Amino acid sequence: MENIPASGDAGVPDGRCVEALRGVALFAGLENRVFDRLAKIAERRDCLAGTTLFRQGDANTPFCILVSGQLSTYRTAPDGTVTVIDVLHPAGHTGLSAVLTQLPVLMGVETVGSATVIIIDGAGLRALLPEEPSLAGALLRAEAMVFRSLVLQVCDLKLRTTAQRLGHYLLELAPDKASKSATMRLPFDKRLLAARLGCRQENLSRAFATLRDLGVETSGSRVVLNDIPKLRDYSVAFDTP
Amino acid sequence: MENIPASGDAGVPDGRCVEALRGVALFAGLENRVFDRLAKIAERRDCLAGTTLFRQGDANTPFCILVSGQLSTYRTAPDGTVTVIDVLHPAGHTGLSAVLTQLPVLMGVETVGSATVIIIDGAGLRALLPEEPSLAGALLRAEAMVFRSLVLQVCDLKLRTTAQRLGHYLLELAPDKASKSATMRLPFDKRLLAARLGCRQENLSRAFATLRDLGVETSGSRVVLNDIPKLRDYSVAFDTP
Repeated sequence: MENIPASGDAGVPDGRCVEALRGVALFAGLENRVFDRLAKIAERRDCLAGTTLFRQGDANTPFCILVSGQLSTYRTAPDGTVTVIDVLHPAGHTGLSAVLTQLPVLMGVETVGSATVIIIDGAGLRALLPEEPSLAGALLRAEAMVFRSLVLQVCDLKLRTTAQRLGHYLLELAPDKASKSATMRLPFDKRLLAARLGCRQENLSRAFATLRDLGVETSGSRVVLNDIPKLRDYSVAFDTP
Repeated sequence: MENIPASGDAGVPDGRCVEALRGVALFAGLENRVFDRLAKIAERRDCLAGTTLFRQGDANTPFCILVSGQLSTYRTAPDGTVTVIDVLHPAGHTGLSAVLTQLPVLMGVETVGSATVIIIDGAGLRALLPEEPSLAGALLRAEAMVFRSLVLQVCDLKLRTTAQRLGHYLLELAPDKASKSATMRLPFDKRLLAARLGCRQENLSRAFATLRDLGVETSGSRVVLNDIPKLRDYSVAFDTP
């Protein structure tokens, strides 16, 4: 694992880091003072594809916010089986629950392609929270949002078949949900997609075959949805609320 | 649905409510002032079996902490299929993410048997947070813990078979994890257990049959684990970290 330091030069925030922090949606509305304090314990980092930000079980891991690119969060069973919990897109974040509980982190995190992240030191963040109620409020809301997305994922896993989960996932990717059809690219490879959906790769292929009758065409990473309403009916969307 | 008011008589906290709040683990270490302020927006309530505390999609729902008994949290798909997200034991809690995001609540909540709950008004709680950093800190940690339990449930659903999930669930119920065997009662009926594990009732019966070879005997709600180490090996425990 790489060691992830807090900002090297204490007290001198990196200008690019302050700018990146201001662009993070979950921090919208924070006072300038808070951004300056955060920048002193944060670092903006450009990572190559496949960079491990932290490993499952690591202690003292940081809070990590994705600025660009994608991150996968995963867990490994004692028998070596790996499952992907989620694939994060900007401005997704990870590591907050380990920072707040001071427990070893549950999920390993690595970049899918090249990615830019903001790394915020855990101990520094914990020290800021009692002094900056607006920051605590922002993090309470951020935690609540990721909790909601996991609740929906649990429902997805309990109620839907793999083909329905795939259909639902493709619908989420569609740029315009109101239109009849859509053409898009899968944002990552099918191995990772299978893990994200909680199935084996052969089941993913079968799921794509099932969806063919519902107007879903694939060729490599290119996907065409020819009949979005039909796909939506099949996938039993039961999203918010 | 029942209407859930904040404490009726503003400014006069109910003594039993203050006492109940002081007993809640997630509030441990809060100042007396904070307990008094919480009690003014909280109500301790004894509920009969099958009482609906709130329904999926309700707005302005409260934060609900379980003092005794059990609560089930569930979601219903448009086709009417119900899935149980979790069955909460004391001092489990629910509704916090809806309070913090001010979004409709994702899960319906009802009592399994008779239960006692503390109901904290959402708007009142949001108003307290900026003024009471120790309360915000306590809720940040509480959210982080429920997030972690959902991460483990997602892994469970993605990596384990139904029989493994059942084995893991029974191991969690065992009073003494270090001993070779255990006898216990299922805390709720098998219909609810199947929903909690994300399977149909017939699959639950098959899962119990599979576990018979691993020393799991059942008779009604009574369960005997004759070989905990063997069951643990089979169930591929990959818990924290």
